[in-house]
Amino acid sequence: IPRRLHPRAEMLELPFLPFCFLLSILGLLCVAFVATWFQHWHGGFSWDGSNQTFNWHPVLMVTGLVVTYGAAALVYRLPYTWRGPKLPWKVLHGSLALLAFGLAVLGLVAVFRFHNVHGTANMYSLHSWVGLATVLLFSCQRALYNPIHVFFGSTILMLSVVSCVSGINEKLFFSLKNGTTDYKLLPAEAVFANSLGLLILLFGVLVVGALARPSWKRPDAQSLDSSQ
Amino acid sequence: IPRRLHPRAEMLELPFLPFCFLLSILGLLCVAFVATWFQHWHGGFSWDGSNQTFNWHPVLMVTGLVVTYGAAALVYRLPYTWRGPKLPWKVLHGSLALLAFGLAVLGLVAVFRFHNVHGTANMYSLHSWVGLATVLLFSCQRALYNPIHVFFGSTILMLSVVSCVSGINEKLFFSLKNGTTDYKLLPAEAVFANSLGLLILLFGVLVVGALARPSWKRPDAQSLDSSQ
Repeated sequence: IPRRLHPRAEMLELPFLPFCFLLSILGLLCVAFVATWFQHWHGGFSWDGSNQTFNWHPVLMVTGLVVTYGAAALVYRLPYTWRGPKLPWKVLHGSLALLAFGLAVLGLVAVFRFHNVHGTANMYSLHSWVGLATVLLFSCQRALYNPIHVFFGSTILMLSVVSCVSGINEKLFFSLKNGTTDYKLLPAEAVFANSLGLLILLFGVLVVGALARPSWKRPDAQSLDSSQ
Repeated sequence: IPRRLHPRAEMLELPFLPFCFLLSILGLLCVAFVATWFQHWHGGFSWDGSNQTFNWHPVLMVTGLVVTYGAAALVYRLPYTWRGPKLPWKVLHGSLALLAFGLAVLGLVAVFRFHNVHGTANMYSLHSWVGLATVLLFSCQRALYNPIHVFFGSTILMLSVVSCVSGINEKLFFSLKNGTTDYKLLPAEAVFANSLGLLILLFGVLVVGALARPSWKRPDAQSLDSSQ
């Protein structure tokens, strides 16, 4: 189907590859920010049930459910994938999605392990409800019929972003409650982690926007698009 | 442009009006839940700077930036609006958006007033940053060129939902910290407000999904769609 562009609309045509390049930088920045936050302000990482076990949770969730997931979702928007056999791209899409899922499961294990070692309750906050719903929806993705899979693809990314922002907010209220480092006083950690929240939000909005952009979709997917 | 549907895709064709009816019920449920939460558990509403002044904040934000905003965004998806003069629908879209904006500004005034009367800091949490960014983006909407206006329309709704979920989570950590009503113990208020968060999320995902659905767009908007 030839694309018919409104004259004004052509001004907004953005090439996919430079966009993708900027998005990759933004994704790497999200991972660097979340790792730096927990390395610099919370003593780094371990798997022994201590506080440093929890620290894997945000890092694995942002890396898996936001950045790797976003990369998996955008595979079919690469113009290379529109020609030739589709199988290699399916394998790439599936591998990235599987990696994202694996990282998310490890991220869940980290927080449950930390809670259980400390006798803390699991799954009470709205953050935990939304987060678990996100991972459960993600785990259903393989069985779904394609147009629903595509719709749930964007939905899951929105849910991931909602989980990240509410989780960062919650973590800062937990950890910044002393006189000089109170969240209210906006210490350096608060500004840094709030900025991480905004970066994740920007990444999520750009990926969901890119997925919805008709001119970046596989041409042979256009007929299916009408229903999705 | 005639719509060409993939045979499998037709199975997913959903009529807009029943969807809209269900969405209206969901929107009313969101408003009823948030009002009940603050009426039943937090002593109702006032404008005198007391705790009950804060209570307007969540009610006005959910009613304005989520439900009324969602209604404004969906006006042009009503098939009636595709025939005849566009002006009355523009007036409806603009009036609903203006109402949503007015409610959001009042909601901001409520929380600033409450903080200032109590000498509490403003604008430090990630929730407040995302929330203010949402209202600021919304305030730019009038000046924007149409395809950007449409993209920002969905973006602002996603940001509103992120703000609501992080705000509900934050409010519950603030108010549920006594022995028997601790958030960790999931008292009735926590279950109720967590459920409100999930309802808002569902409403937001359905509206953003409906806006992105090509077969529900104005046929004459199709050429513009290619760029957005």
